[in-house]
Amino acid sequence: MAVAVFSVFPVVNKLRELLPTVNFIEVQETDPSPLYTAEIILADYDKVGPHIHKLQNIKWLQATWAGIDFLKRYIDIKNPPKFIVTRISGQNLGQMMAEYVVANVVFQERNYFEVRENQKKSFWNSGPYVYNFRSISELTIGVLGIGSIGTVIGKTLKYLGATVYGYGRRESLSLENEEYQHISQYFNTANLKEILSKVDYVVNVLPSTPETNDILGNGILENCKGRNTVFINVGRGNVIKDAEIIRALKEKWISAAILDVIEKEPLSEDSPLWKLDNVFITPHISGSSRAHDIAQQFKTNYERYQQNQPLIYQVDYERGY
Amino acid sequence: MAVAVFSVFPVVNKLRELLPTVNFIEVQETDPSPLYTAEIILADYDKVGPHIHKLQNIKWLQATWAGIDFLKRYIDIKNPPKFIVTRISGQNLGQMMAEYVVANVVFQERNYFEVRENQKKSFWNSGPYVYNFRSISELTIGVLGIGSIGTVIGKTLKYLGATVYGYGRRESLSLENEEYQHISQYFNTANLKEILSKVDYVVNVLPSTPETNDILGNGILENCKGRNTVFINVGRGNVIKDAEIIRALKEKWISAAILDVIEKEPLSEDSPLWKLDNVFITPHISGSSRAHDIAQQFKTNYERYQQNQPLIYQVDYERGY
Repeated sequence: MAVAVFSVFPVVNKLRELLPTVNFIEVQETDPSPLYTAEIILADYDKVGPHIHKLQNIKWLQATWAGIDFLKRYIDIKNPPKFIVTRISGQNLGQMMAEYVVANVVFQERNYFEVRENQKKSFWNSGPYVYNFRSISELTIGVLGIGSIGTVIGKTLKYLGATVYGYGRRESLSLENEEYQHISQYFNTANLKEILSKVDYVVNVLPSTPETNDILGNGILENCKGRNTVFINVGRGNVIKDAEIIRALKEKWISAAILDVIEKEPLSEDSPLWKLDNVFITPHISGSSRAHDIAQQFKTNYERYQQNQPLIYQVDYERGY
Repeated sequence: MAVAVFSVFPVVNKLRELLPTVNFIEVQETDPSPLYTAEIILADYDKVGPHIHKLQNIKWLQATWAGIDFLKRYIDIKNPPKFIVTRISGQNLGQMMAEYVVANVVFQERNYFEVRENQKKSFWNSGPYVYNFRSISELTIGVLGIGSIGTVIGKTLKYLGATVYGYGRRESLSLENEEYQHISQYFNTANLKEILSKVDYVVNVLPSTPETNDILGNGILENCKGRNTVFINVGRGNVIKDAEIIRALKEKWISAAILDVIEKEPLSEDSPLWKLDNVFITPHISGSSRAHDIAQQFKTNYERYQQNQPLIYQVDYERGY
């Protein structure tokens, strides 16, 4: 069976290594025709998007990213395509994002960006400003979104001693369940304000769906007031508008923001966000779709596909991710 | 029983909270006399050091730091004082240092100091330079020094998926032992070159002893050549001279250095180390003796002392720490 591959990631050689008997056809911009006849496609959403209505034989599209926002530009969400779409997710992406969160919490708590600036001035700062810090074990951290990525983030923070609060859509969660044992308390839409008022860090991992649009907007961050809460966004920029983040910082509802995703990417050059000292902006790189991870996940799904088993990380249009 | 406390850390109130029946006497610079009659002293080494030979009744000195280098200025190591000295160590210090190591590995692997510089220029860098990074699970990390601090660092890195190599003085280590299960391979003095040649990161946690003096000096880092090894020093600056670090970077034996400790602290203003882009200097703050940690450890030891049990983290002059 031929698999059409249409991606900027150098994934084809990895795929051929992992699945030597499969015929992978590398699709070129100049000739997208292999897409139209393929049963299985592995592709970046932005590459395959414009062709989505011309795919005749497709049964399964394995994407190379986690978020399906881009795909939504090309499909009608109320009348979605009939073929299976699987996205990239899971342990590797979760691990990368967990590392991002941990590293940024440490740098934030210890003022290490300023230590770096001090270094440029040959200044050995040995005052309380640098030694009076909190370790992760002294922090309460709210993780908004408790899917596969949020779980790895939450478990890692818990391992490091943090008190982890979880937020999701479900009404309740069995916290005695092995999967949720890292969560000390669970909150949902009805008590979003409450979790915000109780945590030192808010880590957003929620996907972009109609329900999460602006979920941290409209002044709700005022509930963080007095806690010096830091907002970390590794999920999607739809949860809060840039102007609202600036407002929350100005009003001191939150003390800092670490933003891997923002309202509209790339962030426009004239955005005031760039210049705020208590904002760290990373260009959507907390997790990265690496060729070998993509290939590995494709292999897992390909083998399940061959055996008629359900594929992992299937997109569910009703949930919106 | 009276306990004399002589420290810059605001530890006395915490001690009184934890041990309300004990009489803590706060010693002032202007009147050190309570030291001379106390049986138990809790003190910073540099504070108590000049008085060390006038302590008449002392049976136990609980220090507020981990390293005893400072104490050695005031005692004859071959004829050390007869009283017990306990140092600060253990889980909390280990955790803080583990956080430091993890955060710095992530920032190093992902070029986040440069991402921060890009932010100042309003530059959204979305090229391979920022998304082609390694996660910790893809790294092999050598931990030099496998005591209580090195163990917390090693276990944390292992939890995050790293392959951890250990280095110590002992000839061999039972790696099946619960305590060492995070260590994939063990190396000692006889094969220091070998561990250096096999790791992506070398994390030094060794204490300052005659045997560790210059242990990473004399060109031995040449064994890292070709691996782009990063050197992290959270232990003591005696293991390598500053000039040797500069040489190792220049010769590309190592690709970067993250230095919380250096040969002579504070680092002199005219040191060329300050200005090297691939060096991050922090002013001996990877772990911090915080008042509540010191008080907590004092409490543990005080209760053991009352019950004639061995105290934890006793200084052993023969070992040198």
